[in-house]
Amino acid sequence: MSIVGHSFLSSNDISVEDINKIFTRASLFKREYESKGRIDHLVNQGSLGQKVITLIFSEPSTRTRTSFQMAALRLGLRVVSLDNMAVSSMKKGETIADTLRNVAAMWPDIIVARFNDDIESYDVVKNSKIPVINAGIGTHEHPTQALLDAFTILDSRGQIEGEKVLIVGDVLHSRVANSNLILLRKLGAEIAYCAPIEFQPKNDDWADVRQFPDRDEAVKWASVIMGLRIQKERHMGAAGSIALTVAAYRDKYRIGGDQLNHFQQDGILLHPGPVNRGVEFSNYVLSDSRCKVLNQVTNGVFVRASLLSFTLGLEVKEA
Amino acid sequence: MSIVGHSFLSSNDISVEDINKIFTRASLFKREYESKGRIDHLVNQGSLGQKVITLIFSEPSTRTRTSFQMAALRLGLRVVSLDNMAVSSMKKGETIADTLRNVAAMWPDIIVARFNDDIESYDVVKNSKIPVINAGIGTHEHPTQALLDAFTILDSRGQIEGEKVLIVGDVLHSRVANSNLILLRKLGAEIAYCAPIEFQPKNDDWADVRQFPDRDEAVKWASVIMGLRIQKERHMGAAGSIALTVAAYRDKYRIGGDQLNHFQQDGILLHPGPVNRGVEFSNYVLSDSRCKVLNQVTNGVFVRASLLSFTLGLEVKEA
Amino acid sequence: MSIVGHSFLSSNDISVEDINKIFTRASLFKREYESKGRIDHLVNQGSLGQKVITLIFSEPSTRTRTSFQMAALRLGLRVVSLDNMAVSSMKKGETIADTLRNVAAMWPDIIVARFNDDIESYDVVKNSKIPVINAGIGTHEHPTQALLDAFTILDSRGQIEGEKVLIVGDVLHSRVANSNLILLRKLGAEIAYCAPIEFQPKNDDWADVRQFPDRDEAVKWASVIMGLRIQKERHMGAAGSIALTVAAYRDKYRIGGDQLNHFQQDGILLHPGPVNRGVEFSNYVLSDSRCKVLNQVTNGVFVRASLLSFTLGLEVKEA
Repeated sequence: MSIVGHSFLSSNDISVEDINKIFTRASLFKREYESKGRIDHLVNQGSLGQKVITLIFSEPSTRTRTSFQMAALRLGLRVVSLDNMAVSSMKKGETIADTLRNVAAMWPDIIVARFNDDIESYDVVKNSKIPVINAGIGTHEHPTQALLDAFTILDSRGQIEGEKVLIVGDVLHSRVANSNLILLRKLGAEIAYCAPIEFQPKNDDWADVRQFPDRDEAVKWASVIMGLRIQKERHMGAAGSIALTVAAYRDKYRIGGDQLNHFQQDGILLHPGPVNRGVEFSNYVLSDSRCKVLNQVTNGVFVRASLLSFTLGLEVKEA
Repeated sequence: MSIVGHSFLSSNDISVEDINKIFTRASLFKREYESKGRIDHLVNQGSLGQKVITLIFSEPSTRTRTSFQMAALRLGLRVVSLDNMAVSSMKKGETIADTLRNVAAMWPDIIVARFNDDIESYDVVKNSKIPVINAGIGTHEHPTQALLDAFTILDSRGQIEGEKVLIVGDVLHSRVANSNLILLRKLGAEIAYCAPIEFQPKNDDWADVRQFPDRDEAVKWASVIMGLRIQKERHMGAAGSIALTVAAYRDKYRIGGDQLNHFQQDGILLHPGPVNRGVEFSNYVLSDSRCKVLNQVTNGVFVRASLLSFTLGLEVKEA
Repeated sequence: MSIVGHSFLSSNDISVEDINKIFTRASLFKREYESKGRIDHLVNQGSLGQKVITLIFSEPSTRTRTSFQMAALRLGLRVVSLDNMAVSSMKKGETIADTLRNVAAMWPDIIVARFNDDIESYDVVKNSKIPVINAGIGTHEHPTQALLDAFTILDSRGQIEGEKVLIVGDVLHSRVANSNLILLRKLGAEIAYCAPIEFQPKNDDWADVRQFPDRDEAVKWASVIMGLRIQKERHMGAAGSIALTVAAYRDKYRIGGDQLNHFQQDGILLHPGPVNRGVEFSNYVLSDSRCKVLNQVTNGVFVRASLLSFTLGLEVKEA
């Protein structure tokens, strides 16, 4: 299966060959942008027309939404953004499934979507003739985040195969972790995780994944540390459903200066953001040169530009 | 009067000749998009420049707002969208009239507006040198919805003249019904309605319109059934001002399978959306091939693209 | 220091030479737009590519935000607008400083920002490699408003040097007044103010500025009257912190018909908007031909287009 003209809903949807094509093009885009300040001239404008990407986000999202917009605009695509989709629909009593059917009926070239799915809306997405890119549908996957994470590993470490990727934190509630597990394994990385019992994954994909009970031992093993956001407001503290306190989490799972001292000199640290400073990573870690959190954000634009251009079947000239 | 450079505030503003021009061009746009995936190349880009459409919506609107954006972007126009206009203005104590004066002073090429009007703001709109397109100003009209409804009848039925259009539901509170009555009559269609006493129209335009007390008889008469949204949250139930219950409405006015059986085989069903599933139309009706609700949404983009291009005086090449 | 590639955070950042260049180009843009309905053809598109301006506004802003969007689109630039930045960030517990770091990491060409700053976020802005334009950061300055005010004086009065600019109203809380004081003095204007004790400025820049206790005497002195918005909801009345009532303000500081009679025939009145009708200016004043409030709005688009084009280093052809 090729990516051209198809939805991208899961890391399972994409072959190693296509991933490599996406990464090669993302890399070309990044280099070209760094030298010339633009990438649109690499895209075959003759066949382009006024392509329109529709973003449907049911919750505010600085990072992912803006990243897709930047990616689209850099390519010369146009964007319609329905930020208040859920609010707008719900106010009028329309289901998400019906909103999706309506947006698709306007014939955008690609739909980029984030919303809490249900059986009917997921069905609309699965059967959509318009390609849909999953930017966080439901709780299971966030595959473009995994793509940009993998690209950042490749970009910083020179390879993905054989890398030892340690995922630390709230694996249970993380669609990022799920998408990364599938994608990084497909590309030959070794995955392990370290998480308090409350945040350990339960689905089958994780059954055979190595678990480190001890953070410090895990850090010594890893070449890549991927922190995951702790959703304090949802899960922890007085109002939350989990007994674990932020202080207790920090004590045993935060990556700080002590851990960095035992982390390999050319290792890297990743985090999908936004980071809770002092919780998942200390401020000291965030200012270390091995921390690639902002590089991930930069790479995200070029990886998504690459993905969008492939999905649209656009030809790209070598510079 | 020609549409070039003029506001479009009411179905009364437009001649049959201009309607036909708009439909011919909308049809060209749709065919061209279906075969080539673009329409911007039909527009004379040489004279275009960076034309900017400003959308001013004081309430969230998935359908109409997104449709105008898609239409503008497909043509190669640019869009500035002020979604929170009313909120933003009101917070600072500015009237809608003054907000409109300010937006007009930025010299956009067209203003597309939806807001609750008052005498002063309507006056600003009436006297605006910038063409204003009514996307739901006040409660009286929504003329671009009527245009796309009429276009869908033409597209699906091959003509408008002689069609028997039955409007069912909340005619009283519907700016869509008002705009359709004026437009469809101008194009030679016969109009009738069927509505509970609480939703029957009171203004003079409707005085001589045929009324069917009985839904089933009305359906047998019609070639086109146009459902209208029941605004449950505003008018019905415990908090509403109308004694009629949703169940009582459904019982006598919903179009369901029983009605479809007596509806002509090549008839069509329309609805401006969002549909309250099971209230105005049953799910069975919504999945029937005669139901053109999503076709209306698709056609809306091309009809609005056509209208925008005429308002701007853009020349369009035959493909 | 040149403006090309640099941030514009304060009226102090810009030389008289650069101001004159910006005004000359803004004037060219305005004339060209009036005759041809476009300005993008003056910009060297060959070197342009798909330049992207990112707007980060933490509060709704009809005027400034829309003005920057219009300016960017007229030039042929693309815009990503993060209106709900603060909401979106704060919901997830991210600081404004971290949001800014992330947006900058997406490599937009210019960031236009309005937010309540703190030491850390201001530091991010000061050290940003991406040029940042201050559209109301914190409470101290709003330098593009000062630019458009000065341009409007030049446009309407033929010069700035020697003009007698009277600032009336809430000088204390006005970033507009601060930016204008610095800019207009640099350009040779004489500044004075007239304000109730509660609204008199306290910072050192204002120490030697002439103060008129009496409005009517001040008006006779002035060639330009600049009203400032009274933020009733913040400072006055029952819930506010200031004893002064709106009625008392009106009585001694409103500019009305009586004042106009003593104002010079070719003088002009300015206001950054939104005007509280009947408070700062009477309705009569707002409809007087000397009142240039809407001209300011029009000029704002061309001044900002000029500033954006200089910041990006774009060459502009003489028409």
